[in-house]
Amino acid sequence: MKNSAVNQFLTNGTLYLSAPEAARVVRKVGLEFSLRRIAANIHEDFSRWADFDKSTRVANHSEFGVIELMPVSDDHRYAFKYVNGHPQNTGLGLSTVMAFGVYADVDTGSPLLLSELTLTTALRTGAMSALAAQSLARRDSRVMALIGNGAQSEFQALAFKYLIGIDTLRLYDVDRGATAKLVANLQPFGFNIVVCESAADAARSADIITTVTADKTRAIILTPDMIAPGVHINAVGGDCPGKTELHADILKQANVFVEYAPQSRIEGEIQQMPADFPVTELWQVFTGQAAGRTCATEVTVFDSVGFALEDFSALRFMYDSALTYGFGQRIALIPSLENPKNLFSTVADPHRATTGRHTSNGPVATVTR
Amino acid sequence: MKNSAVNQFLTNGTLYLSAPEAARVVRKVGLEFSLRRIAANIHEDFSRWADFDKSTRVANHSEFGVIELMPVSDDHRYAFKYVNGHPQNTGLGLSTVMAFGVYADVDTGSPLLLSELTLTTALRTGAMSALAAQSLARRDSRVMALIGNGAQSEFQALAFKYLIGIDTLRLYDVDRGATAKLVANLQPFGFNIVVCESAADAARSADIITTVTADKTRAIILTPDMIAPGVHINAVGGDCPGKTELHADILKQANVFVEYAPQSRIEGEIQQMPADFPVTELWQVFTGQAAGRTCATEVTVFDSVGFALEDFSALRFMYDSALTYGFGQRIALIPSLENPKNLFSTVADPHRATTGRHTSNGPVATVTR
Repeated sequence: MKNSAVNQFLTNGTLYLSAPEAARVVRKVGLEFSLRRIAANIHEDFSRWADFDKSTRVANHSEFGVIELMPVSDDHRYAFKYVNGHPQNTGLGLSTVMAFGVYADVDTGSPLLLSELTLTTALRTGAMSALAAQSLARRDSRVMALIGNGAQSEFQALAFKYLIGIDTLRLYDVDRGATAKLVANLQPFGFNIVVCESAADAARSADIITTVTADKTRAIILTPDMIAPGVHINAVGGDCPGKTELHADILKQANVFVEYAPQSRIEGEIQQMPADFPVTELWQVFTGQAAGRTCATEVTVFDSVGFALEDFSALRFMYDSALTYGFGQRIALIPSLENPKNLFSTVADPHRATTGRHTSNGPVATVTR
Repeated sequence: MKNSAVNQFLTNGTLYLSAPEAARVVRKVGLEFSLRRIAANIHEDFSRWADFDKSTRVANHSEFGVIELMPVSDDHRYAFKYVNGHPQNTGLGLSTVMAFGVYADVDTGSPLLLSELTLTTALRTGAMSALAAQSLARRDSRVMALIGNGAQSEFQALAFKYLIGIDTLRLYDVDRGATAKLVANLQPFGFNIVVCESAADAARSADIITTVTADKTRAIILTPDMIAPGVHINAVGGDCPGKTELHADILKQANVFVEYAPQSRIEGEIQQMPADFPVTELWQVFTGQAAGRTCATEVTVFDSVGFALEDFSALRFMYDSALTYGFGQRIALIPSLENPKNLFSTVADPHRATTGRHTSNGPVATVTR
């Protein structure tokens, strides 16, 4: 029941990866390795789908956005993510999506890792999209339309470069500054880049169309006339009740794939469709129980909303990487008690120090590297 | 939409209260003030019950315990708690219950405060019990049986001393060491203490019976023969499917009060009863819409399971107290970006530092006090 990770927690506290520290991990191991490894973890975890205790996320909606909790666990590890979605945030200097989460031990409930998940979510979303496209896009796909050039767009571009072999990008965003930022960021990576005047223009001649816009509305980014036979649509931006990107007629003529159907029916593009609209869960494709793309002319849609298991897979990667390279700090998120039944000892005597075993009142200790 | 708390977050990051730092806050403001203030916050928040977006907690059960997420929000603030329950943990040197949580801004999703909640949960549970007893126990109650002398017991004892006027405690635990610890910890507080040989012995002549045991089983700590007319039962330990403390016949003859009926019917003592078993939610009592105790001879039960709104109220107290006294540290849980759409900048160039505005790669900065 007790394992080395729990012993580490008991002795040193919870491992904490701040946003800058998680970025250091990714820079250390490399973007390509991070995207490939997270995709491999997702494939591995989705392939043992039945092992997981799954639920639709818990969402608290408000006027300007949503805050969600996304838990998942197997017999060994538990993970959850806190994530918001507030499209107007960028106007305030804040990110639309901010996230953090915890990776915990199931047998004891010990929070082993507290990590930023804003960057990590961007990585896992790109990795998940490319992983799905490996089964759903035509093998000869080289041109991707990328509609929505915000915080997630570079990660989509690179995941599709590394995992699919995309070499040409057709970019469009209502915010030209966002596109300029994306072009500048992608400059070192050797893409052929075409900046387009409209979503329709971007979609023209693309093998894959990725939509990753942020409006919390029933937007219609793509209409049926923009969709050529054989296209794969990677619909990332619609992930909330009332927030969609595709015209319903596209879904009717396509083969639609989802992460976890009960959640996607609430949040995905398919919220526009009847409850019995046929979809395939990707774990079925990964395990060979269902087909992905079956011919060169069909239209496929990955109706991505983001499922807790992807964060589980990503947290697993970040935890392993941080331990391997000694990144992160140990923090006293939970009281460290000589006698666990004596919680009161921490507040008993104002003139006595706490009886904690590790971190006391000072600043968080840094792990020696 | 933007407010000073969000500005603080944007400029300095998330306020972090570690377990030792939260204990410092409580020692600074005092245990009595903490318990009274948290009880007042709970009363205030429960009295505007309709303002909150409420849900039953999300529980992931496993062989040895449970991990739960408890979110709640109003139009202004959001809070959630992570909490586990693993009765065998104490044998490993770990606490049965470990918790932490976040207090966030609803309009932007900004996580304003990340706080330990192990100590805070103990305080709010004691405060909630005593607050309920103010409406449910006889006014002349002075003697309390305290069955289960673990980590939560001191907080129950003190909350009932300060808010109810309990001066005599009748203690029982299967673990004599736990009782000895409780006696030692309570020594400075001037209780009359009687160490008892059994739960029945402890319950004898008590005005209030508090059960706060930890076994994840259908334990029967109290049977009908132990319950005298006029007693108030504060049943704290049964808080999980399959985890109860009271004989069903006690519930049948008593007036039963709960926090949030949909959750209590799953987790509370009333999980033993039919779905239409009559209960009163405490907010109805606090607002005068329902009666608490109506006569000196009835038996009342507070079937406590712990509801997210209590943590909201407690986090509000901890946040306000930490800001007032300058406790806590600011951490970079979320990337700080000059351009929120340029998340990629944090990982773009391995030879360049991150473009964060505040905390960079070093140890967490301490707020100047």
